[in-house]
Amino acid sequence: MSNDLLLTNVRVMGGAATNMLIRAGKIAEIGAATAAPGVPTEDGGGALLIPGLVEAHTHLDKSLWGMGWRVHQAGPRLIDKIETERRLKKEWNIDPARQAGRQIAQSSQMGSTHIRSHVDVDDAVGLAGMEGVLAARETHADIIDVEIVAFPQSGLMCRPGVADLLVEAMRMGGDVVGGLDPCGIDRDPKGQLDMIFALAERTGKELDIHLHEAGTMGAFSTDLIIERTRALGMKGKVTISHAFCLGDPDAALIGPLLDAIAELDIAIMTTAPAGRPAPPVAKLRSMGVRVCSGSDGIRDTWGPYGSADMLERAMFIGMRNNFRHDAEVEMALDVCTYGGASVMGLKDYGVAVGCQADLVLVDAESLTHAVVSHPPRRLVIKRGKIVSRA
Amino acid sequence: MSNDLLLTNVRVMGGAATNMLIRAGKIAEIGAATAAPGVPTEDGGGALLIPGLVEAHTHLDKSLWGMGWRVHQAGPRLIDKIETERRLKKEWNIDPARQAGRQIAQSSQMGSTHIRSHVDVDDAVGLAGMEGVLAARETHADIIDVEIVAFPQSGLMCRPGVADLLVEAMRMGGDVVGGLDPCGIDRDPKGQLDMIFALAERTGKELDIHLHEAGTMGAFSTDLIIERTRALGMKGKVTISHAFCLGDPDAALIGPLLDAIAELDIAIMTTAPAGRPAPPVAKLRSMGVRVCSGSDGIRDTWGPYGSADMLERAMFIGMRNNFRHDAEVEMALDVCTYGGASVMGLKDYGVAVGCQADLVLVDAESLTHAVVSHPPRRLVIKRGKIVSRA
Repeated sequence: MSNDLLLTNVRVMGGAATNMLIRAGKIAEIGAATAAPGVPTEDGGGALLIPGLVEAHTHLDKSLWGMGWRVHQAGPRLIDKIETERRLKKEWNIDPARQAGRQIAQSSQMGSTHIRSHVDVDDAVGLAGMEGVLAARETHADIIDVEIVAFPQSGLMCRPGVADLLVEAMRMGGDVVGGLDPCGIDRDPKGQLDMIFALAERTGKELDIHLHEAGTMGAFSTDLIIERTRALGMKGKVTISHAFCLGDPDAALIGPLLDAIAELDIAIMTTAPAGRPAPPVAKLRSMGVRVCSGSDGIRDTWGPYGSADMLERAMFIGMRNNFRHDAEVEMALDVCTYGGASVMGLKDYGVAVGCQADLVLVDAESLTHAVVSHPPRRLVIKRGKIVSRA
Repeated sequence: MSNDLLLTNVRVMGGAATNMLIRAGKIAEIGAATAAPGVPTEDGGGALLIPGLVEAHTHLDKSLWGMGWRVHQAGPRLIDKIETERRLKKEWNIDPARQAGRQIAQSSQMGSTHIRSHVDVDDAVGLAGMEGVLAARETHADIIDVEIVAFPQSGLMCRPGVADLLVEAMRMGGDVVGGLDPCGIDRDPKGQLDMIFALAERTGKELDIHLHEAGTMGAFSTDLIIERTRALGMKGKVTISHAFCLGDPDAALIGPLLDAIAELDIAIMTTAPAGRPAPPVAKLRSMGVRVCSGSDGIRDTWGPYGSADMLERAMFIGMRNNFRHDAEVEMALDVCTYGGASVMGLKDYGVAVGCQADLVLVDAESLTHAVVSHPPRRLVIKRGKIVSRA
């Protein structure tokens, strides 16, 4: 009977009320399914059923969740935030395993069933972040799947020794090779990008590169990423996170980049930031670009915001992109479900028969209503097991 | 004993735990106050105590709250939204009194104790919106104070007869004279502004003008508003709502307007929209400009968003303006409390002895924590009476 469950009276993606039978953690039947002996039944109460939410960009190793309120200390520049965090990680004892566990629990409660987490690899913490998040991933394997990006948060070329640490982080269990502002932070775009692309190629892994750089500098870095993706035949294996530069209003600057991004199937991650230029979600989707989203840092030394709620994130995407039509808001939700699943290469993801039963029940009238109201999740299911209940 | 209450163990604005005695609906004592005979006691449980939230810009007459989910229908332009709304008000029977009552109840539950509502006055609904909201204001006078702006939503010069309706709306009980995009919608900025300024002057009322116009057109309209405010001696009596144009990056265009706005004590209302240019809150505040905020339309024919939660709105202000420091996020909260009170000219507003006991208890560790987490309100108090409880 493990991972068997009959859900009654659920509205799959907002459709008519129906039943869903889960067998061995997979969706076995949708429709008039009735209880089988030994299969527990759960009354869905007419709730909406959606696939597990996908948190495709966060930082499990350094949230302050559950550590009591801490007054924000960092200065305005990116480098100020990096330096402040390096200091406070020690001063405040921000333990990666403990904090990852806390955030995973919160994420699961909010209906996320998959997380891509960047994990700091640098000359201050070394591989402690990797060790902590790997341990937390193991401990919480029953409620959430975690994919780990080995992330040179403090820079790679500008910090001697970090390149070797990154190689070691991938050996330890890193799933994806990370990168960060090759101009703005590393001040050696060719050096950083050559190194991380080579590491990805050698290990057969994908890349996910933080790019905060705006305007022409960000466009330049994007172009260098495009160049290497094409030259190394890494179509479909690269994600650019944030990509603020793609929100630049200069169509002559951005247009050619968007074309190349679509051609090379480079995925874009956006948190849909209210206070920054942001990639145009509807345009990217219309060009066939895979778009995912995430909470980014949740209540950390970078800023006080974040709830780990990917339904709320879908609302932010809608608000940032001025989505008002239901179909547009549903697209924002798709970014936070199927979009993330596509970027993370999840197999058997979704709400069809045969898919893994990673599911969320939400008391809402429609998908758009679920996004704009994002109420506490009625039920969260991971591989057929109930892991959270409002 | 009416409107007497002893609150124990509350942290006023995040300070140390204390008691607060309310007598006859006013704050009588803060400190070691102990129960007096016949005064009910409420254990604050160490919650944060803040003044009632101020919803300084919304549209009570046309929310769809509680009407079941309605698929969004309007086209992309402002005029599409206006025309669609005129049609759907009839087709869907959006009853102003009923809908105002529903939104007021939701607002109260979220801790708002004061609302400034724009109410449509046009050639489609005539004065029905005014009648409805006036009735709802009366019915709900115990839980919230409502100020009404007579608002020519469909235009004034371009709709014959609306000017007379606006005059009548002010006679009926309008508190503030409204206006709307004198170029973009009315296409006669001199005509509209001369008319509404004259009406405000004649009735001795203030003005609150919707200005969605961006860029140089918005700057032109702002300049015309400034010109009339100065010429008519209406310093401190004009609010510009939205003022997207003030978010224009062209400092040479906007700088002189900001100076004049500060000089003439023109107040600015911003919802801190994620997808539009928005007035720079910190800069305005540093210049001494009164800034308030509001939900704008809540789940209406204009768009699906909105929760009537002004703590969440403070979070949006923080996110839009890239506020990270606690003092900055507290400024965003101040916009949603004291800022709104200042724009609405509320007397005896606040949490000091002598103030009207319009109060909210929030389970949070700090003011910034209250903003970023905006949990259900533990207790909402209006004039010393408990009106909502989580």
